[in-house]
Order: sequence, then structure tokens, then C-alpha cells
Amino acid sequence: MNNEVTFKLNADNLILQALREDISSEDVSTNSVIREKKEGKVQLLCKQDGVIAGMNVFFRVFELLDPSARLESYVKDGDRVKKGDLLAVVYADVRALLSGERTALNYLQRMSGIATYTRSVTDMLSGSRTKLLDTRKTTPNMRIFEKYAVKAGGGYNHRFNLSDGILLKDNHIAAAGGVKKAIEMAREYAPFVRKIEIEAENLEMVEEALEAGADIIMLDNMSPEMMKQAVKIIDGRAETECSGNVTAQRISELTQIGVDYISCGALTHSASILDISLKNLTVINK
Amino acid sequence: MNNEVTFKLNADNLILQALREDISSEDVSTNSVIREKKEGKVQLLCKQDGVIAGMNVFFRVFELLDPSARLESYVKDGDRVKKGDLLAVVYADVRALLSGERTALNYLQRMSGIATYTRSVTDMLSGSRTKLLDTRKTTPNMRIFEKYAVKAGGGYNHRFNLSDGILLKDNHIAAAGGVKKAIEMAREYAPFVRKIEIEAENLEMVEEALEAGADIIMLDNMSPEMMKQAVKIIDGRAETECSGNVTAQRISELTQIGVDYISCGALTHSASILDISLKNLTVINK
Amino acid sequence: MNNEVTFKLNADNLILQALREDISSEDVSTNSVIREKKEGKVQLLCKQDGVIAGMNVFFRVFELLDPSARLESYVKDGDRVKKGDLLAVVYADVRALLSGERTALNYLQRMSGIATYTRSVTDMLSGSRTKLLDTRKTTPNMRIFEKYAVKAGGGYNHRFNLSDGILLKDNHIAAAGGVKKAIEMAREYAPFVRKIEIEAENLEMVEEALEAGADIIMLDNMSPEMMKQAVKIIDGRAETECSGNVTAQRISELTQIGVDYISCGALTHSASILDISLKNLTVINK
Amino acid sequence: MNNEVTFKLNADNLILQALREDISSEDVSTNSVIREKKEGKVQLLCKQDGVIAGMNVFFRVFELLDPSARLESYVKDGDRVKKGDLLAVVYADVRALLSGERTALNYLQRMSGIATYTRSVTDMLSGSRTKLLDTRKTTPNMRIFEKYAVKAGGGYNHRFNLSDGILLKDNHIAAAGGVKKAIEMAREYAPFVRKIEIEAENLEMVEEALEAGADIIMLDNMSPEMMKQAVKIIDGRAETECSGNVTAQRISELTQIGVDYISCGALTHSASILDISLKNLTVINK
Amino acid sequence: MNNEVTFKLNADNLILQALREDISSEDVSTNSVIREKKEGKVQLLCKQDGVIAGMNVFFRVFELLDPSARLESYVKDGDRVKKGDLLAVVYADVRALLSGERTALNYLQRMSGIATYTRSVTDMLSGSRTKLLDTRKTTPNMRIFEKYAVKAGGGYNHRFNLSDGILLKDNHIAAAGGVKKAIEMAREYAPFVRKIEIEAENLEMVEEALEAGADIIMLDNMSPEMMKQAVKIIDGRAETECSGNVTAQRISELTQIGVDYISCGALTHSASILDISLKNLTVINK
Amino acid sequence: MNNEVTFKLNADNLILQALREDISSEDVSTNSVIREKKEGKVQLLCKQDGVIAGMNVFFRVFELLDPSARLESYVKDGDRVKKGDLLAVVYADVRALLSGERTALNYLQRMSGIATYTRSVTDMLSGSRTKLLDTRKTTPNMRIFEKYAVKAGGGYNHRFNLSDGILLKDNHIAAAGGVKKAIEMAREYAPFVRKIEIEAENLEMVEEALEAGADIIMLDNMSPEMMKQAVKIIDGRAETECSGNVTAQRISELTQIGVDYISCGALTHSASILDISLKNLTVINK
Repeated sequence: MNNEVTFKLNADNLILQALREDISSEDVSTNSVIREKKEGKVQLLCKQDGVIAGMNVFFRVFELLDPSARLESYVKDGDRVKKGDLLAVVYADVRALLSGERTALNYLQRMSGIATYTRSVTDMLSGSRTKLLDTRKTTPNMRIFEKYAVKAGGGYNHRFNLSDGILLKDNHIAAAGGVKKAIEMAREYAPFVRKIEIEAENLEMVEEALEAGADIIMLDNMSPEMMKQAVKIIDGRAETECSGNVTAQRISELTQIGVDYISCGALTHSASILDISLKNLTVINK
Repeated sequence: MNNEVTFKLNADNLILQALREDISSEDVSTNSVIREKKEGKVQLLCKQDGVIAGMNVFFRVFELLDPSARLESYVKDGDRVKKGDLLAVVYADVRALLSGERTALNYLQRMSGIATYTRSVTDMLSGSRTKLLDTRKTTPNMRIFEKYAVKAGGGYNHRFNLSDGILLKDNHIAAAGGVKKAIEMAREYAPFVRKIEIEAENLEMVEEALEAGADIIMLDNMSPEMMKQAVKIIDGRAETECSGNVTAQRISELTQIGVDYISCGALTHSASILDISLKNLTVINK
Repeated sequence: MNNEVTFKLNADNLILQALREDISSEDVSTNSVIREKKEGKVQLLCKQDGVIAGMNVFFRVFELLDPSARLESYVKDGDRVKKGDLLAVVYADVRALLSGERTALNYLQRMSGIATYTRSVTDMLSGSRTKLLDTRKTTPNMRIFEKYAVKAGGGYNHRFNLSDGILLKDNHIAAAGGVKKAIEMAREYAPFVRKIEIEAENLEMVEEALEAGADIIMLDNMSPEMMKQAVKIIDGRAETECSGNVTAQRISELTQIGVDYISCGALTHSASILDISLKNLTVINK
Repeated sequence: MNNEVTFKLNADNLILQALREDISSEDVSTNSVIREKKEGKVQLLCKQDGVIAGMNVFFRVFELLDPSARLESYVKDGDRVKKGDLLAVVYADVRALLSGERTALNYLQRMSGIATYTRSVTDMLSGSRTKLLDTRKTTPNMRIFEKYAVKAGGGYNHRFNLSDGILLKDNHIAAAGGVKKAIEMAREYAPFVRKIEIEAENLEMVEEALEAGADIIMLDNMSPEMMKQAVKIIDGRAETECSGNVTAQRISELTQIGVDYISCGALTHSASILDISLKNLTVINK
Repeated sequence: MNNEVTFKLNADNLILQALREDISSEDVSTNSVIREKKEGKVQLLCKQDGVIAGMNVFFRVFELLDPSARLESYVKDGDRVKKGDLLAVVYADVRALLSGERTALNYLQRMSGIATYTRSVTDMLSGSRTKLLDTRKTTPNMRIFEKYAVKAGGGYNHRFNLSDGILLKDNHIAAAGGVKKAIEMAREYAPFVRKIEIEAENLEMVEEALEAGADIIMLDNMSPEMMKQAVKIIDGRAETECSGNVTAQRISELTQIGVDYISCGALTHSASILDISLKNLTVINK
Repeated sequence: MNNEVTFKLNADNLILQALREDISSEDVSTNSVIREKKEGKVQLLCKQDGVIAGMNVFFRVFELLDPSARLESYVKDGDRVKKGDLLAVVYADVRALLSGERTALNYLQRMSGIATYTRSVTDMLSGSRTKLLDTRKTTPNMRIFEKYAVKAGGGYNHRFNLSDGILLKDNHIAAAGGVKKAIEMAREYAPFVRKIEIEAENLEMVEEALEAGADIIMLDNMSPEMMKQAVKIIDGRAETECSGNVTAQRISELTQIGVDYISCGALTHSASILDISLKNLTVINK
């Protein structure tokens, strides 16, 4: 989101599609009352404390509608913001400002909501070596934006999708006929640059995974006690991921166990938005 | 979502796009270990109390990947479900089940989360004449699904987008040069089947809107007292919408005021998902 | 069509598609003889009296092919033009002028033909309170252009499509089980901003529709006498639309009956084009 | 239009796009009153004498919405039909019948209107060796359908677009530096399977074109007298096309002159539709 | 490829798609280490003797990623280049240079490989009247680029695709019921600007094709002797094409026979790439 | 290519696009002579020894044009085939067979050419522990097919694209400010499932890369002697890749050095096609 290339190839299409979802023929209200191009500006105001993410996406909405749009931004992604802060001023054709407002805010609020929630969890992890991961539990057609927001909140990304990361779960293991066989088949089949991650439900599976050369072992539904043993057994020969219901108290427990990563679906599937709004639109007389 | 036509024209494309977001080349894990078509089945289990929405969307994911997929469903959209309920069984090529799982759940969990949240608010309104409305604060490229989920939760839909409904806000009124002028311009410009809604911030604007023949008046940021007066002045000559922060206590207050509609952005922008999962995948030997 | 936003989101795609229909690989004639960029200009001449519509669409064709294209226009949409008038001069790369000519004229001629035909009908209605409406009988993938042209000719738009307006016809009424039930079901199901229109074939249906609170009643295939009674019964409690074969003599009759709207499919399905052409292309030597 | 392959590759996309133009989210009227799949049938009735074209396109609309749709057709493209004729019966989900009706008829009526108009002109040419051609003056994004309709009416197709045929006009000739040079450049540049057509405004140009080996010579704006001389000079060494305002009396004149082809833009840009409608929809009880 | 219009309509989409194939979410390596826009330049160096083709396509890749990209080119398509030559310098955002490099070279190397191979064959034909043709044996979704490259190497294009040229092969002839009937059916069915080409396997078919007025006769799998007779029989009344395995010695034989055209699939399906690379990327300090 | 899901999501679109490239309006030759659906069959014959790849892609072309198409296949991807072998019989509508032939073969021949070439190299590596890798030097918009073909020929895939693998080259290292810094930045920025590969040009860089924890080290342009030392230093702590001009003699040398992987661009950029053709099409009389 800080690179034009990414926008051109993989974000603009989604943003335009969102705009077309909101404007299937034309913006009737705006076109009824504003028949000519007029330059205007509008303020972006923060109405709730949090962490900002998606400023470029927010602005891109207007830029796609009016290539001469301009952003004067006082914050950058990842910054903590406070209720009442003036975050930015957008300059553009008034009709672009009015027609793009909702879509721009829908992106910014949701991304900032995710960054804010993520920040609150990463703050709990500070001081430990354990890192926070997102998951594939993202909103359909929002993944590129939501995973970026997790990073803006201090989190790390797990695989982007089913094509760029391997995670062998119970059904894969069963289909292959065991942990070892599954890992071998994946190593045979997949691009050699893929790390191989596998779910282990008990210590036997952990050992088998290690022997077969798994790169990452997901400790799945283990008791804290068993997890501790697993980490000891693994002893740095593979990375460890703990997946599951992250709560304040579980986190302190998990960091003591020493897993490398905790993954948390709620970052993207259950964060509330951050309340931000556009206010004080004025026409610029020239 | 209960009509094939809607899927064919306006949902399948989005679902396929979401699948491509998750599978940009192939599902490497699944293809590593399952090299041939095999029929299987998997259970859809509810892990949290709530209201279900999106069963057809959930199933469509699998049907698009395997046209011979079959759904055995024990619930329908709008039903209240309980933790532990078996909601459905899906039959399909095991590879389609594995590759589609996440996308299918991402839709179903989010839609059910919205239906659940909406239901909790509509329950508070029960007994009153006031109806609950959604807004355009939906997730980009999810509107058709999210607005459907609001209805499954007992809510009503506001306009779908900027093209199919008119809402004249402060900036439109200012651009037109007043309430009356704005309404006239909209009536002149817009398709004649559009109702005209206008925001009123005080009683003078309410009266001006009524005179100009507004169909719907949004009472914006008014005190309960002023709102009560506004409803009395309007006296059924226009529909009334109260927009704003819906909380339990505000709702009882608002229903007593007698507004026709309350709109609530949180239904779609801040509902947590409903926890639902696919379990017990088994291969069917024939 | 007077707003960049509308073009960007919902017209450019159609125009580019039309250009690709006409240039599936390259313009062989032009590329054979003109191997380098050369600036040129060409005149847009009117060859028949009429009303112009679509100047921006016409020009957009060239602008999409050559972003540095420039239009010097002497008319605006809705203007009456005369055979022989110089309407505009276009400046652009000569190859863009030659390759875009046919597509640009195909849009402009058809839109102007519709505006001209519409104007001829609205002129007959002048002095009456009855307004002229278009229908959904538009050319596939041309609706946004054709409905705009109707407005340029002094007409009004009916609903844009099946998603943004309700019109309950005989089959809908039969499926619902009566006029009242159909209206109730629509009110329950549809976004609350939709006006509900219903077809009435006799006076009983008119009364039933009024009672059920229809917003618009279409008087379908009624005799002038019955229509007159219907208008009297309705008495302003709903808007009235008369749909059918509009001819000069019928129009004077209909205006006396006092219906609010007459809808006319011929505006978009049977208007001849307005003859306009590009002439006197010259290379500009710099 | 009589080949599945053509539909799959180059018609279905356009038809689906037309359906989405008419149903941008869902068919609100139909979905309000019909909540479940029900099979039905509907009659296609002719309301005006003419020539039919587009039966497969008409039916494809329903088949795309409901793959189990079925057509019982009593006519085929090119047939003369009479007011009152029952043309076909369509069987499908009632919702597909209602939601697809307008789009299906918009195609069929327009294509049949073109076939009817074309037939009326080709009838005037019967007995002569002169053939009737269409032009590129088609409705944007309708060319494949409109050119097919011209053939159904007994006409012949000129080039499909700028990529598959060469026509060197005045501007091309000027750019190249003369008739001979233009033809040479085209022969050098273009695929060798292209026939080369060139416009000639006078007899010198005709001779030059012949010498340079033009395959087709368009006699442009020539008097009948000059055209006669041109045809004599050409003497079968190239094909001849007369382009221009075709009227009843001009046609008899032109056929006597003995040109090979007459091209006529009005076939596609100014034909009225043929009035056809869907009636008597009934639900089939099983 | 030397006309902006062609790029806008029919090349940019393919190039962007190729870029998305290579960057399905973002360029992780580049975005890891370069977080801000920085201008840079890079040299295009030739590492093998050959003929260059596709300079504009090569550059377009960068221009699509960074509209301010600039090309300083020292060669043009069709030029012979030598190992070690500096072909061009590209200026752009360093991230665009790194992210676009592979795609840009994939186009340029392949196109130049085809031009080089084609040149080597056309050189063998020099002095004869026989011209070299490409075929439809191109790489899927590369045709517009590969056919252009053939021309850059001195070859000529056969039909672009199945829609813009007629070639009646054995199966078509059998389906029609003979050479004559096939030609008649094609003349009746096809746009009149199509030349009709037909395959002849023996001299009887040649005579039949001539009588039926074929424009081009493909001499298919004939012995040199038979081909010689065929050319004599045809005697300029149709163009002749010899299709088949072109080897150095066959070529000298074929040119003596006097066929008009030799077509050669290997030009596009079996040319090796020309080795070209981007080197010496440097950041420009301003 | 052995999974329906992959086709549905990421191959069908490309295949349809290739078909549209070849049939931009309709297959004029076929439609001229075959006006009705007729079932037929055709044989797929091998005309050259090699390795087959792409049978499913080949067949998918016909299945997309005629869903009732059927394949009787006597070989599977990866099989060695001989000149004269009957590989398969395809059954489908004759028009689908004729219209799809070229596109189907263009895929199959190219993919089999790559598999054949790859096999010839992997055969040279047999007995050694060194594996053969492809690169990103694939034909634009063919990557999914070409990388699959490499595997069918016994090779292994490197990263699919810039988004799913990290390779830090000289420019990345320079931008970051050194090997160590580059690796740290990538580890910080990229999804944690990415292996980090880095280019090393000398032994100092190798040591630095090892210290920084690189997963894969590419030995770039090193002499055999230096490479040998590098492998010794690395001693299994990272995987090693040798990239460069693979020739028969270099290969035996490289296998002795003991690198893990050799990558070879020629597999995809310079393989000739394998000659395969469709013959003996016959209509099936029923």
C-alpha cells in the first residue's frame, strides 16, 4: 500500500469495483444539485482513539475519481491517533469528494479498526519473543487491505493464500497416510521455496514432523503443558505456531511457553471499525 | 440469495473472485496429497449461539468448484441456531471441500454475525412501530451479502447505493442553495420513481422539507425533545428516519418518540462473526 | 454524462468495449498508411435538423485513444441544431481521429436521434402537466446513454432497471394472490426507499391499489373514459402513469385526461439516428 | 448465432452484461412476490408483420438465467411472420421468465426490426445481380447481433471491423500520398488475406486504383452517369460498391448501373423494432 | 505496436495480466528493501546477435507501472543488433524497474527471438518473389505480439484468426460436399471482403478451386513436381501458398517453383529467445 | 492441471481468452459449411518422440466449447511418447473440434515441448542429488501451464512469482545496504512462511548470508572452484542453487560440485514444440 505498483496491479481494481457497487449508474443526489466541476476540500477527522491504517487506500478512492485530487496528510499508517485529531485534508472536485466519501471511509475505518485491534494485542506481547500472526479469516475480496492493516498494527502476516504457503492439516495428513508421508508429498510437489507447515495434535506427531523435516509446526489444541513439552522437544529445529482463541490471560501464558508465533483470526474477522469521518466540505473559490 | 438469477448475475462473480484471492495459482497443500477426485462429506457445526444467514452463499462456493456438490441443510437463513447444532452436511469432491472451506466460512460467519447482531437490535424494537435500517457502511464488495444478512436478522434495507436512492445532505443542500431548491433539483433530475430523502438539522428545515414535498426526512443529530416536535410537525406527511448511535437505552427512547425508522451503521461495520466450522471430513467409499 | 465520475465508473468501460468491437487487433487501414503520430483536427458537421445529445460521449472516444485530445465545442447537449451547423472541432493524433471516428459517431448519432425524437413528443406535451417518460425498452448495453439522451430531449426517466424500481405487473399480482398482497409483500421485501408502482387494468384494481398504499398506479390498456374515472378516483393520492402507443392524436387526448406521466418505449427503441459527420480532417503542421 | 461456439465465446458475455445492466443487484419486484423456484411457461407472440431474427439470442437470455430452460419454437430466423402468430413457447423458472423478459425482447425486437427492414430493401433488389451490404454504423456493443440480423433479412456483410477489412478513404489516400501509394502500403503492411478496398471520387482515381490492383472500388458520391462509366472502365477487374442514401427510386437506378454491391447504413442505424411480446405466463403445476 | 491506439485497446490488457501473473499480491523482495519512491535508470544490453522486436512492448511494461517512466532507445524494431550493444536506457521509479524487469524481458526476448528466426529465413528468400508467412501456431494470448515480431523480421502475416480469414481444409470440403460447393457456401456466408483460400491436395482439386473462383490455393503436401504443375495451371489466376516444413534446402527448391507464399509455423512455435538483459541499475540522486 | 478446482479458478479464463484471440467474432470457415450440430471424433497423433504434457488442457479447450465433449486418452502427462503413437480420441460437436483444434494444439505442443526438453536435462542429472528448477522466464500469460509442464518432465518449480518467493538480488542488497540488512528487512516485512533466498557473488557474501540466516543461497556467476568452496562453507546450513547456462558438460561438472539445485531458463523460454496433430476427423452417424 506504499507502492504505486501494488495499487496499479492489485488494489485499484478492487477499489473501482467497490465504487461501482456504490454507484451502479450515477450518484443521483450529487448530480442533481451540482452540475459542474467545482474544486473543494474536506477534512478527515478522527472520532475515536486508535491506530490509523489505509491512508493511501482512502486517498486512492478520490484520485481514481479525479486524477487531480490532492492529499495533505498529517499522519501515516501505524500512527496512534486520538479522538478529535485532524488527520488530513483532501482537495478534489466536489462531486468526487461527495461520491467517493462513503467508499473511502469504508476502507479507512475498517483497516484502522483492524490496526487498532492488532495493536492492542501486540502491546500485550511486547517484551516477549512471540510474534502475532493473522490468518486467512479475512473478509472476501479484502485480504490485501486487511493483511496490510495487521502489519500497520504491529502484527505479522501468515501465508497470503492457499497458493503461497503450505499448511498440512488433519485431512491432508489423513489423505496422505501420515505425517511423514504428507511432508514428503508436499516436498515433492510444491515449489522448493515453500516452507512446509504441519499441524500436530500430540507429541508423537511433533516428533514425526521434526524427523520428516517440517519447517513450521502448528501446535493445535494442545494444553499449555503439552505445548511446553512440544517446544522443548522441537528445540529450535522448527518454528512453532500456536493457533487459537487469544485472550488477555492466555497471551501471558503463551508467551511464557515460548512459542514463536500466535495466530489470531479475530484480528480480521471481528475487529470493530475505527470511527473516522469527513467533515466541513467547502468549495474553493478561485 | 434465494434466487438463482441473483447468484448468476451478481453474486457468483464476487464469490469466484474471493476464491481466486485465496487460490491465486493452485491449492498447493491439497494438490500435494490428493492427486485424484474422491467424493467426501463434511459437517457444518455451530460453535456459538446466533442467527444464521448465507447458507446459499456458503454452499455456492463448493458448487462453483464442483458442480456435482450437494447440500443437506437443517436450517434456513434467519433461523436461530445454538452452539453445538449440526447445521448442514456438504457432499463434494474432497479437494473442493478442502480448497473452498475457508472462503465458504468467511462468507457464512460474517453474514451470520451480521444477522445475529441485527436480531439483537430488532428484538429491542419488537412491539414498537419503529423499524431498523442498515446503511451504506458495508464492507467494500460485500454489500449484496451484508444487506441480505440484515434482512435475515429482521432488519430492513435503506437504499442499496448512490444510484438507487436520493439522500440530500448538508453539502447537497448548500450546493443547491437551500432545502427547497435541493428537493426541486432532485425531482427535476432524478428518475421519477425515486423517493426524495433529505437531512434536517432543525425544525425550520423540517418545515421547509415538508413544504417542498420531501418523501423522507432524516432527523439528524436532534435532541430527543426536538425530534419529538419534528415527528409531531411532520404528522405522517413524510416518513421519518433517525440516524445515529444506537444503544440499548437510546432505542427505548427512540421508539417512544415514534420515528418510523432507525438506521444503524454498526450492523454491518462492527458485528463480530458468528463462530461456525467445518468438521469431520470423511471420504465416501463407493 | 456531465460528470467525470460517471464516465470513470460506468461509461468508459462500455466505450472501450465498443472500440474493441471495432478494433479487435488493430486498425489495419490507418496503420498501413500512417506510421507515426501526427496531430490533426477534424470538423463535426450536422447534416440534419434535430437535438444534440452525447457530445461528451463522442469526445470521450477520442480522449480514451489519445489523452491529449481536445474538443472545441459550439453546442451543448439539448441544443437544437440545424443542417449545416459546425458543431465542434476535435484535435488529436490523426490515427486516433481515424480509428475512433465510427465509434464516436455511432454514439453521438444514436443519442441525438433519441433526443430529437423525444423533443418532438415533449413539444406536443408543452403546456400540459403531463410528463413524458422513457422505459426499459433500450438497446442492450446502451441504457445509460439512451436514458441520458431522453433527458436531453426534455423527457423524464422511469426506473433505471429492475433493481432500483418496483413495478408489479399482472404476473406479480397473480403470484402474490392479489393487488393488496403484492403491495404488502413488496413493502416488506424491498428497500424502504422504493416507491411501489402497480399496474391496474380496471377500476377495482385502482381502488385496491390505493387502499394498499401504492405510490404510483399504471393505467394499463384502459379506454380514455375509464382512465378519466381512474384519475378522478385516485385524486392525487397516487401518481398516475399511462403506458402505451403514443401518437400525436392520443397525446392531446391523454393530456386532457390529466395523467401525470406518459411512458413511451419508442423513444429508445425506434428513433432513427440524427445524421452527423466528421469532415475535413487536416494534419496540423507544427 | 446458430453455433454454440459463437455464443460461448462472443455472445454470452454481452448478454450477461445486458442482464446486469437491467439487474444491478436483484429483481426486486419478482423477488418480493415469488420466493421459491416454480416452473412456468410463456408465449412469444408477434404483434406486427415482419421477418424474425434472433430466436437463439432471445432464448439464450433465459437459458443463462436457468440452465433447464426449454424453447419450443415454431419459426426460425429469416422467416416472415405475421401479426398474431404464436412464435414460440418458453419453459423455465417463473422468476427467470420475469427477470429475463425485457432483455430477451430488447434483443429479439431489435434484431427482427433490422431483418425486416433489410428484407424490404433486398426485395427491391431481387432479380438484379446487385447485393445489399451493411456497414459499421451499428449500435455500440451490438455488432455481432446486428450483422447477423442483416443476413437473416437477406443482406450481406461488409467487413466486421477495422481489423478484418481494409478500406482506404480520402484521409488515408492523402496521408499515403495518392491512390497507388496507399494501395502499395496496405499490401505491404496488411495480412495477405485482406482484400484491399479504396474509395474513388472520380474516374482518374478509378483507373489509378485498378492499375494498383485494388480488389474493391467504392464509388463515392458519383453521379449515376459517372458511376456507369466507372463500372464500364472497371469491367470486372475489381468489385464495385456503391455507398450512400438508399431510397426506393435510387435502388432501381443503381441496379441498372450494375454495381456489385450497395451498402446501406440505415439497415442497422435506423430500423424500428418489430413489435413482439411475451404473454400468458402460467405456472406449471406438477 | 507503433500506435498508441493498438496498445490502449489490445495490448495493455495482456501486459497488465502478465504483470499480475508475476505479482499476484505484491513484489515482496522489492517492497521489503525499498520503502519509498526513488528514481533510477537501467541499461538494456544485448547478449547475442539478432534482430530486435518489441521495444515498445518492453517499455510499456514500465510505463504501465510508472507513468513517468522514460525510454532512451538506440535501436528500433527490425534492426540487427550485436552482442554487447547497448540497446536502450530506461528511467523510472526503481521499484517499477525491479518489479517489471522480468515481464518486460520475457516479452522482448521472445519477440526478438521470433524476429531473429524470421530474418534468417527471409534472408534465404531474398531475390525471389516468394514471401514468407506466419501461421496461427502462436503461443496462446501472445498472437498480437508474435505476429508483429514476424513482420519485424521481414515476414508477412497470414490471417490473424479464424474470424478474419477463410481457409477451407479437408474437413470443411468434406462437410460441404466438394471443393466447389465449399467455396460457394463460403462466398454466400462470409463477409464479402474475405478472400477465400482452399487447400488442394492434387491437381483436380486445383482445377476445381480455380473454376469456383478461389482467391488463394494452398498446395498441401504436394511433391515439388506436382507443385510445379499446379503453379503452371493456376497461372496467376489465384495466389499460391505452400505450407510445410521449411528447411534451408527446401526453400531454394520452393523459390524455383515460383509459389507466391511459403508459410512456416516454426517462426512462432519454435524460435529460441534472443538473449537480452537489464544491467547496471543505479539510483539517480537529485 | 489434474484438479478441476485449478481449472475453474485459474486456467479456464486463460483458455477462453486464447479461444477469443483466435475467434474474435466467429469461425467463418466452419460456420460457412457446417450449419448444424453434428457429432464427430478426431484422433490425436504423435509425430515426434518426446514427453507429453497438457492432455487436460488440450481437452479442456473442447469441453469449454462443447460441454458434452469426451476424451478417450491413451497416455498421461509425463509419459514418453513415440512418433506415430495414437495419443487420444476426442469426441465432440464437429464445429467445436474444428474451431478448437488450433488452440488445443498450441497448448499441448508447447507444454509437451517443454516437458520433452526438461526430461532431456533431468535425465542428465539422474543419479545425482541435484535437482532441476525452472525460472520466471516463462511466456507471458502461460506460467501456470509452463511450470506444470516442467514438473511433467521431471523438473521442480522455483517460486511461482514475485509475490510468493523472495529472492534478494544485487540491486535489493545495494538498496538495503548489505546482505545482512537485506535479509533482516525481508524477514521483518514478508509473510513468515517465506523462505529467504539471496544471491551471492563471492565467498564473503556467502558467509554473510549464512550468518544472517538465509534459507537459500544462489551461487551467481561463480567459477566451479569457488562454487565448490561455497558448498563446503555452507555445509547444509542453507540450500544452494546454481543459476546459469546449462549445457551437457556443465551439468556433469555441477552435479559433482554438489549444489542442491540448478535453475534453467531455457526449459521454458527456448524449448521447441513437440509435433502433435489432429487427424482423421469423422462425423459419427447416429
